[in-house]
Amino acid sequence: MTASPALSETTSRHEDFALLDAWWRAANYLSVGQIYLMDNPLLREPLTRAHIKPRLLGHWGTTPGLNFIYAHMNRAIRARDLDTIFIAGPGHGGPGIVANTYLEGTYSEVYPHVTPDAEGLRRLFTQFSFPGGIPSHVAPETPGSIHEGGELGYALLHAFGAVFDNPDLLACCVIGDGEAETGALAASWHSNKFLNPARDGAVLPILHLNGYKIAGPTVLARIGEEQLTQLMRGYGYEPRYVTGDEPFAMHVAMSEALDAALDEIRAQQREARASGFRQRPLWPMIVLRSPKGWTGPKAVDGVPIEGSFRAHQVPLTGFDEHPAHVALLEAWMRSYRPEELFDAQGALRADIAAQAPLPTRRMSANPHANGGLLLKDLALPDFRDHALAVPLPGQVRGEATRTCGTFLREVMRLNAAHANFRVMGPDETASNRLGALFDVTDRMSTAEILPGDDHVAPTGRVMEVLSEHLCQGWLEGYLLTGRHGFFSCYEAFIHIIDSMFNQHAKWLKVTRHIPWRRPIASLNYLLTSHVWQQDHNGFSHQDPGFLDHVVNKKAEVVRVYLPPDANTLLCVTDHCLRSRNYVNVIVAGKAPALQWLDVESAARHCSAGLGIWDWASNDAGTTPDVVMACAGDVPTLETLAAVDLLRHRLPELRVRVVNVVDLMALESPASHPHGLSDAAFDSIFTTDTPVIFAFHGYPSLVHRLTYKRANHRNFHVHGYREEGTTTTPFDMTVLNELDRFHLAAAAIDRVDRVRNVAGHLQQHLRDRLLAHRAYVNRHGVDMPDISGWTWPAGR
Amino acid sequence: MTASPALSETTSRHEDFALLDAWWRAANYLSVGQIYLMDNPLLREPLTRAHIKPRLLGHWGTTPGLNFIYAHMNRAIRARDLDTIFIAGPGHGGPGIVANTYLEGTYSEVYPHVTPDAEGLRRLFTQFSFPGGIPSHVAPETPGSIHEGGELGYALLHAFGAVFDNPDLLACCVIGDGEAETGALAASWHSNKFLNPARDGAVLPILHLNGYKIAGPTVLARIGEEQLTQLMRGYGYEPRYVTGDEPFAMHVAMSEALDAALDEIRAQQREARASGFRQRPLWPMIVLRSPKGWTGPKAVDGVPIEGSFRAHQVPLTGFDEHPAHVALLEAWMRSYRPEELFDAQGALRADIAAQAPLPTRRMSANPHANGGLLLKDLALPDFRDHALAVPLPGQVRGEATRTCGTFLREVMRLNAAHANFRVMGPDETASNRLGALFDVTDRMSTAEILPGDDHVAPTGRVMEVLSEHLCQGWLEGYLLTGRHGFFSCYEAFIHIIDSMFNQHAKWLKVTRHIPWRRPIASLNYLLTSHVWQQDHNGFSHQDPGFLDHVVNKKAEVVRVYLPPDANTLLCVTDHCLRSRNYVNVIVAGKAPALQWLDVESAARHCSAGLGIWDWASNDAGTTPDVVMACAGDVPTLETLAAVDLLRHRLPELRVRVVNVVDLMALESPASHPHGLSDAAFDSIFTTDTPVIFAFHGYPSLVHRLTYKRANHRNFHVHGYREEGTTTTPFDMTVLNELDRFHLAAAAIDRVDRVRNVAGHLQQHLRDRLLAHRAYVNRHGVDMPDISGWTWPAGR
Repeated sequence: MTASPALSETTSRHEDFALLDAWWRAANYLSVGQIYLMDNPLLREPLTRAHIKPRLLGHWGTTPGLNFIYAHMNRAIRARDLDTIFIAGPGHGGPGIVANTYLEGTYSEVYPHVTPDAEGLRRLFTQFSFPGGIPSHVAPETPGSIHEGGELGYALLHAFGAVFDNPDLLACCVIGDGEAETGALAASWHSNKFLNPARDGAVLPILHLNGYKIAGPTVLARIGEEQLTQLMRGYGYEPRYVTGDEPFAMHVAMSEALDAALDEIRAQQREARASGFRQRPLWPMIVLRSPKGWTGPKAVDGVPIEGSFRAHQVPLTGFDEHPAHVALLEAWMRSYRPEELFDAQGALRADIAAQAPLPTRRMSANPHANGGLLLKDLALPDFRDHALAVPLPGQVRGEATRTCGTFLREVMRLNAAHANFRVMGPDETASNRLGALFDVTDRMSTAEILPGDDHVAPTGRVMEVLSEHLCQGWLEGYLLTGRHGFFSCYEAFIHIIDSMFNQHAKWLKVTRHIPWRRPIASLNYLLTSHVWQQDHNGFSHQDPGFLDHVVNKKAEVVRVYLPPDANTLLCVTDHCLRSRNYVNVIVAGKAPALQWLDVESAARHCSAGLGIWDWASNDAGTTPDVVMACAGDVPTLETLAAVDLLRHRLPELRVRVVNVVDLMALESPASHPHGLSDAAFDSIFTTDTPVIFAFHGYPSLVHRLTYKRANHRNFHVHGYREEGTTTTPFDMTVLNELDRFHLAAAAIDRVDRVRNVAGHLQQHLRDRLLAHRAYVNRHGVDMPDISGWTWPAGR
Repeated sequence: MTASPALSETTSRHEDFALLDAWWRAANYLSVGQIYLMDNPLLREPLTRAHIKPRLLGHWGTTPGLNFIYAHMNRAIRARDLDTIFIAGPGHGGPGIVANTYLEGTYSEVYPHVTPDAEGLRRLFTQFSFPGGIPSHVAPETPGSIHEGGELGYALLHAFGAVFDNPDLLACCVIGDGEAETGALAASWHSNKFLNPARDGAVLPILHLNGYKIAGPTVLARIGEEQLTQLMRGYGYEPRYVTGDEPFAMHVAMSEALDAALDEIRAQQREARASGFRQRPLWPMIVLRSPKGWTGPKAVDGVPIEGSFRAHQVPLTGFDEHPAHVALLEAWMRSYRPEELFDAQGALRADIAAQAPLPTRRMSANPHANGGLLLKDLALPDFRDHALAVPLPGQVRGEATRTCGTFLREVMRLNAAHANFRVMGPDETASNRLGALFDVTDRMSTAEILPGDDHVAPTGRVMEVLSEHLCQGWLEGYLLTGRHGFFSCYEAFIHIIDSMFNQHAKWLKVTRHIPWRRPIASLNYLLTSHVWQQDHNGFSHQDPGFLDHVVNKKAEVVRVYLPPDANTLLCVTDHCLRSRNYVNVIVAGKAPALQWLDVESAARHCSAGLGIWDWASNDAGTTPDVVMACAGDVPTLETLAAVDLLRHRLPELRVRVVNVVDLMALESPASHPHGLSDAAFDSIFTTDTPVIFAFHGYPSLVHRLTYKRANHRNFHVHGYREEGTTTTPFDMTVLNELDRFHLAAAAIDRVDRVRNVAGHLQQHLRDRLLAHRAYVNRHGVDMPDISGWTWPAGR
């Protein structure tokens, strides 16, 4: 490969790039050193097998390209005083980013034992991919990063999320051509339709085509430059190509491309800020086409390495079987001329070190990449001001998410000046009844807007796109850079980002134990249009299993809330928006539903996490015959309807009603910090009374959380059994035996004292189910005494 | 909107399209009827409120466009005798597809009670989105469909999967502009780099821009035609635009665009089949830009409907509050002139019915869309021929997936002539040690291939792309059309397709109860590079939770296997490739590991699902003190090492070793068909002995599966606790307390008889852990007596 002809007048400019090239060589040297060495870091003695790690782990292939880009970004930062973060999409190239942060001095600042000298170098090398050391990818441990480089696909989303509402920030985002094949990345190029240069910063995507994945070629490297250019223009970017392998020609080409791209970005920002946003520009981007494993061994034992898929991980191995490979490694490392790079003590030579930006401008020390440093509390209204009036339980109806929407509107309004709060959703903000937000803001778009569009503007703060990946990725980037957000989603389709949730939860878990990382705002999900409200869309829209997925992650990170009505949802939302370093999952319905608690009762109930609803129970002063427990809005309704029925028809049955808002309160305190003590749990659920538990999700989750509790053997959980179709809301509960009749029957069945005398009542319950079936099949709606049921006012 | 000028000479050709237009009107009429009516289907009396369903559900907005495309495809099918299936990406438009299948007569063939007359129409209308009826989306119940229209994003993938190895098949794939925003769809355009016109059929993508989602505008409708054209060309398609709202102008434009596209496809196929594949062509595609809710009410109560987001669902409602709306609905329905469409009995008029293709060419009756009809058993080699020789347990090492690879190679070879088997993987076939496949086939690519590429060819049958979405979607399409496949994936990243798995499992669950749907081959996952082998990539690559996700789905559909070694993996693979209508999840490692069972023992063990390993136990003829159970390869190794240690140092302890291959055998037979009877379970796990269970995944899953078993309270499960980083394989087990020392200590701790006398041994175990920590932190590798441990040969 050679550089493009137009950019090939390189020799005359060698001197301009000598120090930049030295930085690049130093970064490459440190990268190789991290992968291979545990001693003799400066090669001040001949390399021997004993200096080489016994177990070689790491990804070399992408690393020299990352180092090349990093070095060039530093040049541009110094020249333009840029405020920049670096997103390494090919985050497997961890040693490269670590090397640069070390060369910038940041690494030694946050990890003082890794000193800028020979001993520090030895530690830097040894710790990499080593037990007790650091991971092989760009990770939370890496200064300057908001992006774990393990699971691919989210680089561009994190970059855009980071620059939203950060007008002076530039995110330099490297996208590997492997990563570019993923769904999330393929969609995320369109993020430019959601970026407003008048108020947001900029993303400079650098697509790094090194041609290969682990073994096969990459798609974007094999479609020809013409189609790639069209693809990028179609996505709304004008590509500039930097192609070749001769270092100095490449330095010239890269610096020219970078300068042109940064000029263009600045021009677009100036215009939008001077004249207001008018039209989405064609944004610049760079395609860097360089060999995989660039500057590494050309071939080993006659097999090509550089420029092939074989450079992907550790290109030179087998030192025990092939002692001659030691010399190859030494020659490779010496090709970077370490003696020109480090001084006698092993510190980077001052003239090379001066290639780093000013301390506050180093990408490795940019506070945006440690967002907690910049985090400001949200200004929050008193949620009580938005409460529904609930004079008596079960008498008035309300829409929980609509109430929540008015609260969120005030949050949006109060924080508009700080520009640090956004709401995400896959085109469902209004459908999920959060439409009050549109009183104070709009849907965000910098694509074409037509008359008749409903609340769409380039200044909007509601981010709607029919991609859960984009919503999630932007929000992660926004939170990680120290802002706040709220993501409302259809419950079933949140599984689309299961894997992204995993990575974010893992990030949070690790950062909690890194002292220099500051807490960030929690990631708040509102799952609505949930399984029990998919009578409209049917079976494909019914899956409450995100909760099961979430609780697999560390208890210190995850929280799950199932508010039964509007005022409890308000309390929970307020709580979540104040919290830090969690993933909060709230499940709440949007349909009109009976309300149970006034706001003060709601606040007390949410604070306790779970509790007995005395007003619904008739076991005062005695041991109950049965505990009717519930978690979730629809299960709460059905439980109370069942209790009403039981108390009316079988008044001698002593019933205790327990409602659970904070699901993790069910778990043992040893397993989750919200877990109720065993004593408290037993005082509520008893140690020997049957518990009929109506649960929003899959029943196994309640068993999972409670199996260590004394009374677990008496827990009988009703929940979603993967039965459903397009039918009525009540019929959905019947199909899954979560309805009032099944719950009442289950209660009777479990209480010895009444089972044998309640045959008539059991028959009545069966008759009611048959009547329901006949009615709904005939009329297509629920029987009026079911859909219109309320809790008896006088009770 | 008007048609493009070049295509606007419409009036002279009205007659050509009169019958096509009548079909379209009939389909639209039937669509509106399904959404609204429960009686008076032909409007033979004035419409009243009583004829209208009390609960109105459905998605009108996309439907007329789907009907338009369907009608035009029928014209092309008749003219060209095409073999075609229809994929409705905007599957919310269920009433449209149902309407067309009814007009084609297929619906009455598979559902004889829905007759082609007035009574049948009444039933057709009433059943839609009605309790006891059919779902509102295109669904398994819809003849001719392989695609559930609920969760968006997978239309194009299903289309490509369907036409792979079906040279004469055309998939007409409609993509909604909402769906086009999803990650999976954005990436799936690149599927054309994996399609070979010499041996595969063709996909005709029709991007339907109707401009709006539920509430907001769509991205692709708002980027301008120039960028959209560039985007499509960049993806490798040449778009043809059909834009407008005047029906006859649109008929002309659509028929011309369709003819041109189909000519082009045929020409490409002819050339590739005559001369062999040379170069990926620019494939045709169509952009249909028509109003949302086309032909529906222009406005209701002064608010615009047609062409706006308000047409998305049910555009006209509130019949009780606004009785005048009944007349609006009637006028809307009469605008399709039903009296011209249906005869006196209510049957479609013969001249219009003749617009349908020949019975065997109807898209609603295409056997590819009921793939089980075409399914042929795989020719399978005897897996015993590929077995590893295992003369004694725990003496020889082998790589389980490599052994599996040689078996898969033979499967590939034996079925090459049938062209009905493909292997999918995100660039990991070789990395996952299935490289033997490349002895007989290649990686598939019709993008550029360069010298130095490793086994890449346009004739390959291994589908590698760095997108789990693409692998999954193609495989679904391939299986649903009656072929076989195998998907190997890094365990952690299979979560990327959690949601796609959900939809496929739901599809299978429903189809099992539809008599005319024939069983298809199971979807087989091999999850490898699993949590215990991510010592290389670290924490981001560690998540065994797909199993938890899978077991939430119906027991009749899901199977989970954890073969402990190579020969058990062979048996399980053979079994899965023979099975039908399941999702089989196999978890097995790729690293060299000790082997336990010869192939006959392996076959017996797999057939039983779980069993006592007598050769490892010392409780013969007695009740054991402790059951050491294990599931998964690494847990099995650590369990046996723990048992070795216990038997050596505490010979008086009676230990029973139980290994679990078929995870669902743990569950109650009432919950899963593979569940062991309680008697059998108790005979193995006892009813009162402590069980130390070493599990591959999150411990809670074992509790979840066994909580109804008599001995559950004595189950102590060790598994992944969400602890890990880049470290050694053994250290990974230590971090999660799954290692031999923790397991041995747990066993001692639970047995009263030895706990008080084994203090010295417990101290030894603690010392060994400390020694491990010191050694691994110093050397970066595991202690030789750990990494080199084998089961005592003489035992």
